[in-house]
Amino acid sequence: MNAVGLVAFAAVGALKGREAGLDLFGVVVLGFLTALGGGTVRDLLVGRVPTSLQSDVEVLAAALGVVFAVAVSVRYGDDPRESPALVLSDAVGLAAFAATGAAVGIETGLSLFGVVVVATLTGVGGGSLSDLLLVRVPAVLQEDFYATPAVAGGVFAWVTAGVGVEAGATTLLAAMAVLALRLGALRFGWRLPTL
Amino acid sequence: MNAVGLVAFAAVGALKGREAGLDLFGVVVLGFLTALGGGTVRDLLVGRVPTSLQSDVEVLAAALGVVFAVAVSVRYGDDPRESPALVLSDAVGLAAFAATGAAVGIETGLSLFGVVVVATLTGVGGGSLSDLLLVRVPAVLQEDFYATPAVAGGVFAWVTAGVGVEAGATTLLAAMAVLALRLGALRFGWRLPTL
Amino acid sequence: MNAVGLVAFAAVGALKGREAGLDLFGVVVLGFLTALGGGTVRDLLVGRVPTSLQSDVEVLAAALGVVFAVAVSVRYGDDPRESPALVLSDAVGLAAFAATGAAVGIETGLSLFGVVVVATLTGVGGGSLSDLLLVRVPAVLQEDFYATPAVAGGVFAWVTAGVGVEAGATTLLAAMAVLALRLGALRFGWRLPTL
Repeated sequence: MNAVGLVAFAAVGALKGREAGLDLFGVVVLGFLTALGGGTVRDLLVGRVPTSLQSDVEVLAAALGVVFAVAVSVRYGDDPRESPALVLSDAVGLAAFAATGAAVGIETGLSLFGVVVVATLTGVGGGSLSDLLLVRVPAVLQEDFYATPAVAGGVFAWVTAGVGVEAGATTLLAAMAVLALRLGALRFGWRLPTL
Repeated sequence: MNAVGLVAFAAVGALKGREAGLDLFGVVVLGFLTALGGGTVRDLLVGRVPTSLQSDVEVLAAALGVVFAVAVSVRYGDDPRESPALVLSDAVGLAAFAATGAAVGIETGLSLFGVVVVATLTGVGGGSLSDLLLVRVPAVLQEDFYATPAVAGGVFAWVTAGVGVEAGATTLLAAMAVLALRLGALRFGWRLPTL
Repeated sequence: MNAVGLVAFAAVGALKGREAGLDLFGVVVLGFLTALGGGTVRDLLVGRVPTSLQSDVEVLAAALGVVFAVAVSVRYGDDPRESPALVLSDAVGLAAFAATGAAVGIETGLSLFGVVVVATLTGVGGGSLSDLLLVRVPAVLQEDFYATPAVAGGVFAWVTAGVGVEAGATTLLAAMAVLALRLGALRFGWRLPTL
């Protein structure tokens, strides 16, 4: 699930960069940042040297997403961001990232608030950083039901771990919960109110 | 003083988010970020896991500020950011945050420059990050006499600690100095020149 | 070379801030951030308390750049950013910063990707952060052949260190490579394609 997410997030980021008229370097940066930025911020918050700078697997998955996105969009003049396959992969990635983030937070002994923050940032931090580089208000702050599933996943994981469920099962259950909420939001058009 | 600041900063951030048309998630994020962002950046710079992710007290104070701000502004259709009570609480918060930041910097053994940077970021970092999320040039960079008291407080704390004043007294004196400067700026309309 | 870079980067940052109409505090922040921001982000990524907050030498060099820039631009009403001396010093700084960044990454045991990221961020991170504070898409993402030499320097240093060249020589060779590429770009107008 994590690998699917890395590919999908990198593809979305690269396409966003291409649409914004960035050069090749900018498109690649946006792709990698969208895929790896959330986990990197999470690692900084819990005091780890980011895995993205040490392991090659994540980087290769992200590179695959960038190459795929650039190839499709240059070859077919097409923006696959609305395609069901990419939207679904993106939801899978959000679920995997938020659940992994929650697991890291629980392992580090953070408070409920801390677990929710790292779960959410792992899920939506990369996309938000790439929005900021393009001088846009992060999409998750204004619209859609995208960060809320990650928040809920963080709370869910904290409670589940608190009642004694073992770490692997907690992460899997939290990922399922996030995915269900995100797919529900896509299917039924859920939104949060503005005030 | 710190608690007053957390409530006031969170209220200001939430109101800024509401005014910008963010959804409920965005408003809550802006509130928490404004209150807790400066201290979080400071903790990252000195190599600590942020207290905001570990302790519940700060989070509860910030939550109180968000709820208060949303309640007042939705109920009375009113933006209390100009109200004397909130402006004064905000000045108290700036003083408490800058002085605490200076204390952490001194304790970590930073240089004068380092102490000034962490004092200032603790005071104005949260508000500046929330400006950036809204795609605005941070207000402290262009107007008003808001960051300057925090800078002065950092220098003051460094000198005071350097001549042997004990840590608690240094922090209290620095907070008083920042508060005096900020209130003076509000009262007499001090501004820095542009060049 | 590092000192030349700090002075040049700080001057460029301060001039950018002045042009954007920031007040004195904002101009000083932009200058210091442009000079010290890249190294600070690098230190955070590899888990060190930033040298910029501990050592006075870097800060003095940056202060010199800010004072010089403000003095020249206020005195002569002139923006020296296009002057050959400043453009050349800036290229020297990019080379020194990227090579130092690569050395820190190699020393920390990062992957090839990690070394490239910290080399590039050390070189272009300060300027990009100051672009973000001014609500501009970082120049390196859209134009010019500025980040690419830093990327190439990171790869070059990683390969050179990998074949057993000793650390000091690796850093010097990498700096030469970055400088050659950057001067070539300035001389021949190299650009990356948009897609």
